[in-house]
Amino acid sequence: MPEMRMAELARRSDLSVPTIKYYLREGLLQPGRRTSVNQAVYDTEHLERLRLIRALVTVAGLPLARVRLVVAAVSDNSSVLDAMAVTQDVLVGDRDAQTPSDEALSVLAAAVRDRGWDCEESSPAYLSAARAVTELSRENLTLVLDRLGDYAEAADSVGRIDLESLEGADGIDAAIRGVVLGNVLRRSLLESLVLLAQQHYAKDFSGSAGT
Amino acid sequence: MPEMRMAELARRSDLSVPTIKYYLREGLLQPGRRTSVNQAVYDTEHLERLRLIRALVTVAGLPLARVRLVVAAVSDNSSVLDAMAVTQDVLVGDRDAQTPSDEALSVLAAAVRDRGWDCEESSPAYLSAARAVTELSRENLTLVLDRLGDYAEAADSVGRIDLESLEGADGIDAAIRGVVLGNVLRRSLLESLVLLAQQHYAKDFSGSAGT
Repeated sequence: MPEMRMAELARRSDLSVPTIKYYLREGLLQPGRRTSVNQAVYDTEHLERLRLIRALVTVAGLPLARVRLVVAAVSDNSSVLDAMAVTQDVLVGDRDAQTPSDEALSVLAAAVRDRGWDCEESSPAYLSAARAVTELSRENLTLVLDRLGDYAEAADSVGRIDLESLEGADGIDAAIRGVVLGNVLRRSLLESLVLLAQQHYAKDFSGSAGT
Repeated sequence: MPEMRMAELARRSDLSVPTIKYYLREGLLQPGRRTSVNQAVYDTEHLERLRLIRALVTVAGLPLARVRLVVAAVSDNSSVLDAMAVTQDVLVGDRDAQTPSDEALSVLAAAVRDRGWDCEESSPAYLSAARAVTELSRENLTLVLDRLGDYAEAADSVGRIDLESLEGADGIDAAIRGVVLGNVLRRSLLESLVLLAQQHYAKDFSGSAGT
């Protein structure tokens, strides 16, 4: 495996030397191979790790405490499913710790049953969906809730494509990296694409409102 | 229109009195009707505004500076399309100010053309999609990029449902509130539903990887 000095590691990872040294001190990046008292060399595993950290910090906007959880899951010989579970939990976060309403839980349970999804009711993702339904009811956005089945159908396509693209991954390491980066990067891709579709359909909306 | 004192406004908006006073000082909430030197009364418009602010702060996790932009757009006699544009810009933000690559721009342009979308190439949403494509290429997540057309198809359904649910809104005020809250709340709903679909399809993945 080709080795490189800190300067090259910085150049190839698009991070500054002080940032990399910070990640080293924080234990997010594994130490390099020491070649003298104040010199060390790094390899492609360090580069891969830095690319992962950079995506989590700059693309996903995650705080370092959560980046640490993902890095630990990836380092820990975990399976693709473990890595996916950790990534899901980290992405969902606990920003809104509110308990979902019983009504929202049963509305969501019905939608999940209709789609035939086999998923974890105790997972942060499930609670997050239930909280979103709770908020929508609370704000009286019944027009959105009435289409819950249609949104679930679109979400089904996305989740299926996500997993299909992992099937093509070359080995477990690539698959784990794909889960973590894919979830983070595909998330902003999908949401931006939805906004573009809104712009498109809004032109019809404008037409019908103006007449 | 029924009027209420600060204590009732707090109870009905699920916010504390100090929080409401802070929003008043910051100009996010319009002043109430003064009934004495240190008393004022509020009406349902104040309540609506507070519900909007609460959703933007607690559900969308937006900083106050961006909440201010949305509130200004809603207050400003704007059209549904204006409100949608402002909400889109605020949701996309400028967290990642990186310029998209030319290659990503042309990949995105092809996907938009394939779907027949009529959308704004200069909008923050478009740039955000192009940046997501740039990051995916940079991280070599070609398996995700290969499915860009499929993701765009799913996004098309979501954007169409979003706009269809607005068609049913009762008047322009309800539609604007629907755009703002709908975009914020539907966003976390959709992403949570995608995670549930992933959990479902991951079980097949696990099976095929184990054999």
